Amino acid sequence: MTDEKYTIGVDYGTESGRAVVVRVSDGAELGSAVYPYPDSVIDEHLPGSSKPLPPEWALQNPDDYIGVLKNTVPQAVKTSGIDPADVIGIGIDFTACTMLPVKADGTPLCRLPEWRDNPHSWVKLWKHHAAQPEADKINATARAMGESWLDRYGGKISSEWFFSKMLQILDEAPEVYDAADRMLEAADWVIWQLCGVETRNTCTAGYKAIYQDGAYPNKEYLAALHPKLATVVEDKMMTDLAPLGGRAGGLTEEAAGWTGLTPGIAVAVANVDAHVTVPAAQVVEPGRMVMIMGTSICHMVLGDELHEVPGMCGVVDGGIIPGMYGYEAGQSGVGDIFAWFVDNAVPPEYHAAAKNAGLDLHSYLESEAAKQKPGEHGLLALDWWNGNRSVLVDVDLSGLLVGATLATRAPDIYRALIESTAYGTRVIVEAFENNGVPITELVAAGGLPEKNKLLMQIYADVTGREFRIIDSAQGPALGSAMHAAVAAGAYPDIQAAAKVMGKLKDEVAKPIPENQAVYDKLFAEYVLLHDYFGRGENDVMKRLRAIRNKARGLE
Amino acid sequence: MTDEKYTIGVDYGTESGRAVVVRVSDGAELGSAVYPYPDSVIDEHLPGSSKPLPPEWALQNPDDYIGVLKNTVPQAVKTSGIDPADVIGIGIDFTACTMLPVKADGTPLCRLPEWRDNPHSWVKLWKHHAAQPEADKINATARAMGESWLDRYGGKISSEWFFSKMLQILDEAPEVYDAADRMLEAADWVIWQLCGVETRNTCTAGYKAIYQDGAYPNKEYLAALHPKLATVVEDKMMTDLAPLGGRAGGLTEEAAGWTGLTPGIAVAVANVDAHVTVPAAQVVEPGRMVMIMGTSICHMVLGDELHEVPGMCGVVDGGIIPGMYGYEAGQSGVGDIFAWFVDNAVPPEYHAAAKNAGLDLHSYLESEAAKQKPGEHGLLALDWWNGNRSVLVDVDLSGLLVGATLATRAPDIYRALIESTAYGTRVIVEAFENNGVPITELVAAGGLPEKNKLLMQIYADVTGREFRIIDSAQGPALGSAMHAAVAAGAYPDIQAAAKVMGKLKDEVAKPIPENQAVYDKLFAEYVLLHDYFGRGENDVMKRLRAIRNKARGLE
Repeated sequence: MTDEKYTIGVDYGTESGRAVVVRVSDGAELGSAVYPYPDSVIDEHLPGSSKPLPPEWALQNPDDYIGVLKNTVPQAVKTSGIDPADVIGIGIDFTACTMLPVKADGTPLCRLPEWRDNPHSWVKLWKHHAAQPEADKINATARAMGESWLDRYGGKISSEWFFSKMLQILDEAPEVYDAADRMLEAADWVIWQLCGVETRNTCTAGYKAIYQDGAYPNKEYLAALHPKLATVVEDKMMTDLAPLGGRAGGLTEEAAGWTGLTPGIAVAVANVDAHVTVPAAQVVEPGRMVMIMGTSICHMVLGDELHEVPGMCGVVDGGIIPGMYGYEAGQSGVGDIFAWFVDNAVPPEYHAAAKNAGLDLHSYLESEAAKQKPGEHGLLALDWWNGNRSVLVDVDLSGLLVGATLATRAPDIYRALIESTAYGTRVIVEAFENNGVPITELVAAGGLPEKNKLLMQIYADVTGREFRIIDSAQGPALGSAMHAAVAAGAYPDIQAAAKVMGKLKDEVAKPIPENQAVYDKLFAEYVLLHDYFGRGENDVMKRLRAIRNKARGLE
Repeated sequence: MTDEKYTIGVDYGTESGRAVVVRVSDGAELGSAVYPYPDSVIDEHLPGSSKPLPPEWALQNPDDYIGVLKNTVPQAVKTSGIDPADVIGIGIDFTACTMLPVKADGTPLCRLPEWRDNPHSWVKLWKHHAAQPEADKINATARAMGESWLDRYGGKISSEWFFSKMLQILDEAPEVYDAADRMLEAADWVIWQLCGVETRNTCTAGYKAIYQDGAYPNKEYLAALHPKLATVVEDKMMTDLAPLGGRAGGLTEEAAGWTGLTPGIAVAVANVDAHVTVPAAQVVEPGRMVMIMGTSICHMVLGDELHEVPGMCGVVDGGIIPGMYGYEAGQSGVGDIFAWFVDNAVPPEYHAAAKNAGLDLHSYLESEAAKQKPGEHGLLALDWWNGNRSVLVDVDLSGLLVGATLATRAPDIYRALIESTAYGTRVIVEAFENNGVPITELVAAGGLPEKNKLLMQIYADVTGREFRIIDSAQGPALGSAMHAAVAAGAYPDIQAAAKVMGKLKDEVAKPIPENQAVYDKLFAEYVLLHDYFGRGENDVMKRLRAIRNKARGLE
């Protein structure tokens, strides 16, 4: 038993961080601990200030990330009952793009008294949405200048991404921009704090910072955005990227003090929560699409070749697994549509019935909806309550339900909403397949499929693909621990680690041919409406939004 | 005071009959009484039988109608405190088409032991929907033979109407058909029982029995439906029609015994509940559209000229007011859509808030929705939860909601549904106007507008017309009493009676120009979707219904 070695994966979420101790020999998860960020999501005012932040802002305090290390790692190790001396590496994953400006030594500007009162000196969280004007400029300029990388991102750079956020700092707080020696992902910053070495991981650089074909956007383009931005890459960004699973450095004495681990153990290159989950679900080859299913879906698939797939979120060389192209697509509303429905459109009788049955309302509605055959409710929905990411890349689209009658009941609509998100996934699957990226199987992680067997079956029936789920409730942390094992040399590569440490349930939802036949018909109707409302034939959704905004005085 | 005279209006509804005593000099309603039909709506099995009726059947017992006279009239007279000797006339209105087969002396077949066990011998209530195959044949044959009357009914005869029901009797129970000396509306049958004289009123003959240009459908056409039907008009139907407000006869000794009224007083020609309400709301001239607003809307407007308006329910010479064309259109779902929403799609928090506010849920949602400006919710609905009557005449259409986001709440949808029904009314208003029938004002009766001020304002804003409401909760009975006053000679015609006895509230909802401007835009969007989904461009609603029916094994 003394030969057993362990790694630690730390998963940085939106509101808390979680550490998990994983056995290198088989991926067993032995102990975990969670630490909620004391400053959580900063969207009203800076800590210690009463000055309100503008709408759409979302910041974080980088010291909360250090707090995660100090609090969760020792506790997870203790809970697991292992000897900390047997821990051979640590890896992390993060939300993205979550970025911050720092000094040359890595000190966050917001930690310095002279910058602490300036909101632009803090961490901009992934869901900071105040950089839309900058994103618009980035897209319009790229289109005008014919930048080749634009199509690698479905034709649109998000306001959430790195250059949008950086340009917002430059536009609104040039003094902060000037004072920053480095702008980087919080993920890379935490690794820097752990091992004292600045790295920049291929995943966030590729998906969020427009790193394509060995380079960031060129000077000419950057100058067109803002004269000062022309030299941002050489001035403030690292250009040598570090591969996923690589060793960023050894744990520093200081970080060893925070964590109770041994100085010098391997610190893995940072990764992103969704992407690190792919090998955790044993997916290290083309064809199997991993879906991180929660409020939204992040779809990831590997490919040997580079293809441009319309409406995807990004394709990055080595963005998921070194040596392969990592494709990413997304559905912007899934679990949050179901939550909206359950919170806002289910009458008291179902709440009471769920209570009587000892079920939460989701489970009760699922059990009722599961009694139906495909098509029996007569409904069809467009799953655009939160806009559409892939493949239309249009936040101004909205939800639609058709087929309602006086006999329509809550479980009917609940089932129609689940189906609509499955149709949305099928649109993505077909977009990949039609552009040279085959999808043979679906593998899910995240909270949603675990709780909802009906959803698994519907996705299998609608897409005609077998649907499996990861066998871990802590997929990202498991993936991070796996990358730490690779960085520590326990496995030659992530493929080898995935085979042993990754976990997939035996359970599989297989497409049922008679259901598929009905869903093929319904999917054809979905596509008809999808294209009619989503591709410009009838822009009523946009006009309704414009009328709404005008009525609300937002115009 | 001894000079005051009174008339009695009896309103026969779906589940009960109501008598109201009305003062002739000013229309004051002095007393009323209600009598629920003991056999109510017979849709499971015949009284005294356990043999189930087929689906879609809805029958009644004609003796319940006599029970209404015996029970409500004496009680209403008593409640009013008047001397029954001062009652100078009685009138009735009825649901339609509600019809029955009788012997030559008026005896209903179902009263005779030899026919009592045959469901076809009973009264077929308006909502008996089992004659759809017959209606389909009537329409297809009329189209094939180019019958000119078809366009007077929006191109479609309903399964609810007279010939559909009569043909069903002939198809399924030819022995009942043969045994019937007369087939007639229950409305006319009750008048026959009151005065001993058989009459056939212009309203039901025109709207329900295809009486146009002085004749029922011709022999050649009827023979094409069924050889035996060729002579039905001469064999079983009265061809001399009696005008509304005419005197059918004098009250018989027997009927005087039932009612406690004086033998020989005027019995007015029968009328229909919706149509009799038009003069009760003081509408006796072209231009003002009366809307009976409840679960559905029946729209009625008068015209000096005959025009064929696509998608209307019917146009009948003298069908509402003698000497004018009466136009009728309809919306098949209005109040029942709101009721569906309130019963099936409002979460507990609003139920609790309504209770706390001491309001029913409709009123609470209305009060919340009334805080919004037009367009503020960003939603648009097609009000087709129960299909569409005018102007598309298509029961297979279904409800649609577009514009939903994660921020959509119950009052938003409630308001959007009210608006959708207002857009539906505007489509009808424009169809009338575009075809030579002007609409200058809306006048509403029925339960819905009385309770919902927001609805009044929305209808005014959407249609750009002033919206008034009748000042009586018993509009049909008031209208019947007015027709009785005319039949008794107290007024020369219904126009004169309406001026004095009809009642309209002073309250008026006037269109607000800034609201109209927004609703004009939203209505344009409604029309776009209305035509896209309703006129064949995308028949997804029908295909969803077909898929649904197949899944339910109904195909």
